[in-house]
Amino acid sequence: MLAGIEAGGTKFVLAVGKSPTEILAMHSVPTTAPENTLRQAADWFAKQGPIRALGIASFGPVELDRTSPRWGQITNTPKPGWSGTDIAGYFGRQLSVPVGFDTDVNGAAIAEARFGRGDGSESLAYVTVGTGIGGGLVVGGKLVHGAAHPEMGHLFTPRRGRADIFRGVCPHHGDCLEGLASGPAISARWGASLSDLGQDHEAHGLVAYYLAQLCHSIGAITATEVIVLGGGVLNAGGLIERVRTEAAAIDNGYLPGAQRRSIVSPALGDRSGIVGALILAEEAAEN
Amino acid sequence: MLAGIEAGGTKFVLAVGKSPTEILAMHSVPTTAPENTLRQAADWFAKQGPIRALGIASFGPVELDRTSPRWGQITNTPKPGWSGTDIAGYFGRQLSVPVGFDTDVNGAAIAEARFGRGDGSESLAYVTVGTGIGGGLVVGGKLVHGAAHPEMGHLFTPRRGRADIFRGVCPHHGDCLEGLASGPAISARWGASLSDLGQDHEAHGLVAYYLAQLCHSIGAITATEVIVLGGGVLNAGGLIERVRTEAAAIDNGYLPGAQRRSIVSPALGDRSGIVGALILAEEAAEN
Repeated sequence: MLAGIEAGGTKFVLAVGKSPTEILAMHSVPTTAPENTLRQAADWFAKQGPIRALGIASFGPVELDRTSPRWGQITNTPKPGWSGTDIAGYFGRQLSVPVGFDTDVNGAAIAEARFGRGDGSESLAYVTVGTGIGGGLVVGGKLVHGAAHPEMGHLFTPRRGRADIFRGVCPHHGDCLEGLASGPAISARWGASLSDLGQDHEAHGLVAYYLAQLCHSIGAITATEVIVLGGGVLNAGGLIERVRTEAAAIDNGYLPGAQRRSIVSPALGDRSGIVGALILAEEAAEN
Repeated sequence: MLAGIEAGGTKFVLAVGKSPTEILAMHSVPTTAPENTLRQAADWFAKQGPIRALGIASFGPVELDRTSPRWGQITNTPKPGWSGTDIAGYFGRQLSVPVGFDTDVNGAAIAEARFGRGDGSESLAYVTVGTGIGGGLVVGGKLVHGAAHPEMGHLFTPRRGRADIFRGVCPHHGDCLEGLASGPAISARWGASLSDLGQDHEAHGLVAYYLAQLCHSIGAITATEVIVLGGGVLNAGGLIERVRTEAAAIDNGYLPGAQRRSIVSPALGDRSGIVGALILAEEAAEN
């Protein structure tokens, strides 16, 4: 059996399955102090029978450099007690199995590429827009890591018009995309979530424009065929349609291969993270 | 022997070699009417002895979709007579060999990745800044095509300060990156090339800032380790150092894996295009 953990800031979702899409049992434990959460998770896995490998798709920041002594750790997080937690090492020791480890959004990206929206395409980007904005990129069936992992929320876009002078909420960058279009940015600016603001509120158009700039940048830099937009902010009615319209206006018919490009909702919904974790397990078992 | 063509707007550079880096002979013919240029090239190759495969790294726009009946053609170019020229088909028929075909900048990118700056890295982006701005992306030793090919010059960046109201020269987008920082944009704005403007002229800082925004976007979206900046505009003294400084200021220490990221000049200089064409030939021979 394969085992997977979608390690989130509020809960750890656990699963075992015969394959990434044949899940036999799921469970979740709250994210409290690391020693409690990790032990509860390990205890649950111990009751599920023999496990071949474990995959972890984790909240960050994480260390993904396999040549680093800190590989598999949560690094410098503001979350109390979690900085320096060797999450991959802990489960490797407890379960005595190979461990795959990546970011939560990379897990969701590989899941959508293999079993969701990626059907037949060379490349897929998965972007989640919620408390933060993050993205993963899959090319030729593999996650792109490069120097570490993408941080798609932290690129800069032009403002929509000179009247938009909101300073942004990113502690590192101010008005990068995450500073302008994440859930906290929307709350800071308009005092409510996008879903709670009426459909004729300017927020919808502005957020759609900024997300469309990200989609256009992904398209210009990577020619990615499929861009999947997920996360809580995308629950606002009509937002993805607005993003498509804005992206088409920004591009003005220029980027080649338009008929092969799409901006879509996730096919796997809230299962993308745990399916991704099981894919990471499968890959760890094969290596 | 492998044969390669770097097909440019002013000349076609031709080469034959035992391998992409063991070039035995080179020649160039002027880019005039397609029937003249193509015949002169074919005549030269005919005199070089037996050829195993040909690679073409071409000016664009080009059709790269292998399922399209227009694969291997120059498509809708303003260059007189060249729209619809079946450049790959012509040489395939004349030389009776397999033909590889890609954009000029993709050729340069794969050459830098294999034999230039890519040494040991998973990913490399090659950006040329000249008459236009174009870029190619190599991940895991392979060019990323996605829906077609990247068009890195056509992303949008924030303006550097609200005082910068230059409208840009891109006929499709106005003030996309190419509209702000290409050679023609610099000439339109300041009446001279960057090299001819004094080092204390504001143009250097502005162009460096816009190119740094591209580098930051490439880093945020793909985590690419090596970004190679080439092309005529980069001949301006000190420009690449300014781009590095601006990129570091934009990022503010955020993107992970900083020690594995770099912004560098091409290692292959003006040979990257023809070496890339020979790599395309080698791949065509193997397929």
